[in-house]
Amino acid sequence: MALPTSPLAVPMPEMPPLAGVRLGSAEAGIRYSGRTDLVMAELPPGTAVAGVFTRNRCPGAPVDWCRAALAHGRARALVVNAGNANVFTGRAGVEAVDATAEAAADLLGCRAHEVFIASTGVIGEILPHAKLIAALPALHASLSEGGWDAAARGIMTTDTFPKAVTRIALIDGSPVRISGFAKGSGMVAPDMATMLAFVFTDAKLPAPLLQDMLAHGVKRSFNCTTVDSDTSTSDTVLLFATGQAEHAQVGKHDAKLVRGFRDQLDAVLLDLALQVVRDGEGAQKLIRIDVTGATTGKSARRVALAVANSPLVKTAVAGEDANWGRIVMAVGKSGEPADRDKLSVGVGGTWMARDGGVVPGYDEAPVVAHMKGREIGIKVDLGLGKGKGTAWTCDLTHGYIDINGSYRS
Amino acid sequence: MALPTSPLAVPMPEMPPLAGVRLGSAEAGIRYSGRTDLVMAELPPGTAVAGVFTRNRCPGAPVDWCRAALAHGRARALVVNAGNANVFTGRAGVEAVDATAEAAADLLGCRAHEVFIASTGVIGEILPHAKLIAALPALHASLSEGGWDAAARGIMTTDTFPKAVTRIALIDGSPVRISGFAKGSGMVAPDMATMLAFVFTDAKLPAPLLQDMLAHGVKRSFNCTTVDSDTSTSDTVLLFATGQAEHAQVGKHDAKLVRGFRDQLDAVLLDLALQVVRDGEGAQKLIRIDVTGATTGKSARRVALAVANSPLVKTAVAGEDANWGRIVMAVGKSGEPADRDKLSVGVGGTWMARDGGVVPGYDEAPVVAHMKGREIGIKVDLGLGKGKGTAWTCDLTHGYIDINGSYRS
Repeated sequence: MALPTSPLAVPMPEMPPLAGVRLGSAEAGIRYSGRTDLVMAELPPGTAVAGVFTRNRCPGAPVDWCRAALAHGRARALVVNAGNANVFTGRAGVEAVDATAEAAADLLGCRAHEVFIASTGVIGEILPHAKLIAALPALHASLSEGGWDAAARGIMTTDTFPKAVTRIALIDGSPVRISGFAKGSGMVAPDMATMLAFVFTDAKLPAPLLQDMLAHGVKRSFNCTTVDSDTSTSDTVLLFATGQAEHAQVGKHDAKLVRGFRDQLDAVLLDLALQVVRDGEGAQKLIRIDVTGATTGKSARRVALAVANSPLVKTAVAGEDANWGRIVMAVGKSGEPADRDKLSVGVGGTWMARDGGVVPGYDEAPVVAHMKGREIGIKVDLGLGKGKGTAWTCDLTHGYIDINGSYRS
Repeated sequence: MALPTSPLAVPMPEMPPLAGVRLGSAEAGIRYSGRTDLVMAELPPGTAVAGVFTRNRCPGAPVDWCRAALAHGRARALVVNAGNANVFTGRAGVEAVDATAEAAADLLGCRAHEVFIASTGVIGEILPHAKLIAALPALHASLSEGGWDAAARGIMTTDTFPKAVTRIALIDGSPVRISGFAKGSGMVAPDMATMLAFVFTDAKLPAPLLQDMLAHGVKRSFNCTTVDSDTSTSDTVLLFATGQAEHAQVGKHDAKLVRGFRDQLDAVLLDLALQVVRDGEGAQKLIRIDVTGATTGKSARRVALAVANSPLVKTAVAGEDANWGRIVMAVGKSGEPADRDKLSVGVGGTWMARDGGVVPGYDEAPVVAHMKGREIGIKVDLGLGKGKGTAWTCDLTHGYIDINGSYRS
């Protein structure tokens, strides 16, 4: 099924080389024909790695593999295939991952646990890993510093546009680059809100610090976005630091030194997460929900996600109806502390309800105009405390039904 | 918007009189025109009452009223309006409920707290209770023992068919009747999985025992069903016992004596709950999920509801695709104890996946035939313990988007 490009798509940015990273894609013919479906990245010796994975209790074999490999803290390669998720494939799934890691390790002359693996696509079908392994040598020979676009495209499934971002940060006055790409469109919900995202930096950072920063950034980006509340079995975010930049090695506890880096990393993660929402299956509108006045920040994020996950709110936005009653319902069903009579709801900068009731004679015109746009802003003030949080989602449209009533994911 | 009758509709049963209950409906013109939208039931002195309400933190004024009235344990009247939920209406909402209860109490010569009130419809608009109160005297004068059909129809909103059920139970060898009606179609999720349900019996039962039995029955009926995971602000189930039957008064602790009654009450509640799911917005198929092998019964019900609430499972069923991979995903996202390699999934009586992998060469033909039917059965065995549980839902179709992208609920 050829899907039209999302109206919320953003253009792929120019992706300059990142010191030490060579990448590319190939056609392994795993499920799709006439398109690339296998992506590889080679990383220099000494590359540190951090990872965050799905909390789904039935993860795929590649997720199990990455979790175990992460304990070693070092990476030399990333291998990703699209079209088959290698999930619920029992012993065959484990064998496929082992064999893929061994084959890549042989090509690079590294240890198998330095190879990170991710798979996305159909669940429950045996991954024909012989095809994948057969395609690896030529793919490895073709890797280049300029392979970012190819890599971002090679991991797509129901995605309608490739997703990538690049930024510069300063560490100790010295510039480092952070670049990443991602895929995801459906089966997207918190913990984690994407299928796959891979971020690379040339900064010299120890693995534990990298892990802290990644966990922090994911909490406020991928884990605050949702397309359909369904948590994938394969969600993976990996962060690789090649250490090829000019600055001196950063110690485990130099959190201050990397504050600027952390901000840029957060921005990269949020950018990728929002690109996934922008490509949400059937999405016509991007919805941002800001919650203030909650008892805590955690409570605010939960309320925001309850609104973001409500099918009735999402269909109302699809219908361009600023239905604040449904927003009140979703706030209430979150189970978080809320007092109906202190609750305020605004859309597009206009407060429609305040302190438990409709605002008499509020101006509907700017609200109606706002709802016709592509980016919808919802504000909820709980009037209880200082906690605030934000979540992002897309609307729920006929396109979602079209895609998921026929595509076998 | 005139909606076609759900293909899953069941015919309204013949509803015989129930000793002591007189009911009927009227056109109050609150929101709809050309149809009834106000329902009243009169109950004899001494009627005991029990209730279970939404756990939404932003309930409507009528829910607050019923919760407070319930403390008195006695009922003489029920007044229900459709078209306006009287939710998020601040002080005006409280006044509307107070005035309605006073007006009904005046007509009946009873106390205001013996009047139970429920409202369903649009959220956030002031209920024009003067219209409601003006229609009450004529409605009261028209109440009859045969008004069940009128009452079931008068509380409908997006419902496409009226929902009612009646059963006979024996208490101490003496027959008693249990009859109920309900409405609900969207904004239906556990806690409670209906907008409104009213059940009546002529049994002589004390309020505390009635409350225990109602809470027990709701847990395994309404709270195990979901249409769209959105929990309404108005969900109300009330159970009235007029005490007009022949048997001797049952004591608070005579649980044994009412075992047969409880079974019939459970059946009435489940029947009404399933009628609501059968009228789920856009529903084309009724889905039953049976989970076995869980660590506990509660865990089994949570897993079943996670499957029932998954948009990807529901769209797959709409597309007649027995996509067991999505079922595995939903089991895993529930967060309940699950071991991927012990998990089995079956559809329509055929096990497609067993012990963590696809069943090699399973017969697809009966599965394909089953998926084309109206009633879909999904079985999940977790292979961990003896806990079992069931949930019911409907598929997610274009109809749901059509209804909720335009109807302001």
